[in-house]
Amino acid sequence: MSRILTLTTDFGLEDHYVAVMKAVILKNGPIDLKMVDISHSVPPNDIMAGAWVVREAARFFPAETIHLVVVDPGVGTDRDPVLIKSHGQWFIGPDNGLFSLISQDAGYEAWRLDNAHYWLDEISSTFHGRDLFAPTAAHLASGVNPNKLGTPGHTLMTWRWPEPIQDKDGVRGWVAHIDHFGNLITNIPSSVVKEFQFDSSIRMKIYIGNTILEYISSTFGDVEPGQAVIYPGSSQMLEIAVNRGNASELLGVPKGSEVTIVFQKPAL
Amino acid sequence: MSRILTLTTDFGLEDHYVAVMKAVILKNGPIDLKMVDISHSVPPNDIMAGAWVVREAARFFPAETIHLVVVDPGVGTDRDPVLIKSHGQWFIGPDNGLFSLISQDAGYEAWRLDNAHYWLDEISSTFHGRDLFAPTAAHLASGVNPNKLGTPGHTLMTWRWPEPIQDKDGVRGWVAHIDHFGNLITNIPSSVVKEFQFDSSIRMKIYIGNTILEYISSTFGDVEPGQAVIYPGSSQMLEIAVNRGNASELLGVPKGSEVTIVFQKPAL
Amino acid sequence: MSRILTLTTDFGLEDHYVAVMKAVILKNGPIDLKMVDISHSVPPNDIMAGAWVVREAARFFPAETIHLVVVDPGVGTDRDPVLIKSHGQWFIGPDNGLFSLISQDAGYEAWRLDNAHYWLDEISSTFHGRDLFAPTAAHLASGVNPNKLGTPGHTLMTWRWPEPIQDKDGVRGWVAHIDHFGNLITNIPSSVVKEFQFDSSIRMKIYIGNTILEYISSTFGDVEPGQAVIYPGSSQMLEIAVNRGNASELLGVPKGSEVTIVFQKPAL
Repeated sequence: MSRILTLTTDFGLEDHYVAVMKAVILKNGPIDLKMVDISHSVPPNDIMAGAWVVREAARFFPAETIHLVVVDPGVGTDRDPVLIKSHGQWFIGPDNGLFSLISQDAGYEAWRLDNAHYWLDEISSTFHGRDLFAPTAAHLASGVNPNKLGTPGHTLMTWRWPEPIQDKDGVRGWVAHIDHFGNLITNIPSSVVKEFQFDSSIRMKIYIGNTILEYISSTFGDVEPGQAVIYPGSSQMLEIAVNRGNASELLGVPKGSEVTIVFQKPAL
Repeated sequence: MSRILTLTTDFGLEDHYVAVMKAVILKNGPIDLKMVDISHSVPPNDIMAGAWVVREAARFFPAETIHLVVVDPGVGTDRDPVLIKSHGQWFIGPDNGLFSLISQDAGYEAWRLDNAHYWLDEISSTFHGRDLFAPTAAHLASGVNPNKLGTPGHTLMTWRWPEPIQDKDGVRGWVAHIDHFGNLITNIPSSVVKEFQFDSSIRMKIYIGNTILEYISSTFGDVEPGQAVIYPGSSQMLEIAVNRGNASELLGVPKGSEVTIVFQKPAL
Repeated sequence: MSRILTLTTDFGLEDHYVAVMKAVILKNGPIDLKMVDISHSVPPNDIMAGAWVVREAARFFPAETIHLVVVDPGVGTDRDPVLIKSHGQWFIGPDNGLFSLISQDAGYEAWRLDNAHYWLDEISSTFHGRDLFAPTAAHLASGVNPNKLGTPGHTLMTWRWPEPIQDKDGVRGWVAHIDHFGNLITNIPSSVVKEFQFDSSIRMKIYIGNTILEYISSTFGDVEPGQAVIYPGSSQMLEIAVNRGNASELLGVPKGSEVTIVFQKPAL
């Protein structure tokens, strides 16, 4: 299998920004490199949204994949450019919290990118994706040793990503992402309720906005069209959907909203 | 020419969903496979819109192209996953009507996909595009015999796509698709009016919303900017446009609207 | 390095239009051709927006890259199809002003595309991107001599792109493009103010909409979040942004707005 390089940015698809990064990669990378766009619709400057989508995507890419990730509101200031190895894959971008989730899930090694030999000749102050990160990623794909690209032993700047709160009576989390369908993806791992899901002696109430659900389903087709449903999602987190509808709009629930599950023990 | 695999979904481009399908394909498919996105903007859960765009696109792809098509509101329920051969090309997706148009235009062979050996190890109940359809498509591209992927002799579930009604006095059809420009693509084949198009002794009236047109043009540039025009479109169907404008908005005509052509015979 | 072919259109990504152009290219082009999308979100029929994005992108592509550019409101009328060589790269599309900027920056050679042998068998009157430009681009990529594809010595139709007005007291330009972030990209080259940028004895006032700025910064991070800033942009033009915000919305400045810089000489 040839080498894979993915791209994730908040650049959108209307401008030439993504294409010129690809041009720089094609000029400096190996001929058999495969480029895959993850998303260029990260909300502008939303570092944690970028951190989330890269973590979710990386699970399915093979070892040695290179992920170029640019959500960079501090471009041109003193935030460091970094290269990270984690989960057997590579991540390149600004050290502004963008790698908080990847580095939280497993150990990492990080290099501070400081070798301008591998950058474009002229470095703008507002487009390091093109001038610094893209050529570095291409050279890494071509087999350049990371120790040549930067200085090892870097400690990442990370943001704390709130974890769900759990005790014997229940769990409280929040809506971490709303997808294209309007499905509400929580930060509550499906494993939390797995043992209860098929145990009809455990009753529960799930509170989200003004909606109360009473059991965990398998898929949105388990309820009638128009009805809300909670199920273990494809990201291994609990998700709330409306069958054939947009849950965020129909339930009036924005990103960041609380989701609370209360277990109701059977009376003896 | 190396093998081509296309992707059509209602997943949008903001999430990681399309990219993880590509990751699965890259891990399981041949090294020289070429992936082409047809559209990921099929309206959510709109099976017939998916059926339409795939039929339109497939006309121009070479024999043996594999089309991965996922518009799947019933994912995780008892709808079957299928592989189809039609028009010398391959189609993979849920058997929910998505292949109604392709199979209506020509014969087909279909396989019910039931061999989990070719799927991911863990199958979610909400993302068969990633867990089942993508790996199956990749293995097919790698040369696995379709009879290993599933059971032949499957009969497709199809929806009836209304055909235009025609008699000696005229033809009535409807707006099957509104494109990015706001052009109204009807389901009336251009061939219906071809014999009349350049015959000035045949007068006709074309009714669409509150607009009446009196002749078939060649292209939208045949009328002044801002004027409505009907012409044989690039999909071999009659299309209605406004030159340099958005016909759907300017004429107030939504998808599904009636289009009626009445031939007016010359008085003797 | 294998050959690169880029695509720029106003076709959007929801329809099958871009995919069928790629199908035609794959059928007729060399096996190792790399396709890169520049943008398919050029505003419908906005020729100068297409001219701008292609010029900006082409700077970073290698010699011999082929740029397929289709913004073609006059398709099917008597505007010519053309092939251009400029800046060591190739450009193919309708001769409607779309190549005004590329040809203005440097010399060019142009061929009028008139050899139907290299087109699809059937030419629609509304989709020359698929029927004429895509196959021509693919054949050029395969090594067909441009003199076989068309007739050399063609003179391009060009639109005049207004240049900024400058004298010893200042410079007046306009907002040539608003990008995905809402940044205002002017047509004033950064070089105009380069000599003054770090000379604190030169005071200046920069007028844009109802906002007045007093110095040129290096990057948007030089001002507090929410503040407006002007800096030499990554396209070598002056840009105006709001740090972590959308300048076009927050300053109420649309595309085409005037930007005026007045130099204020120090009193002796």
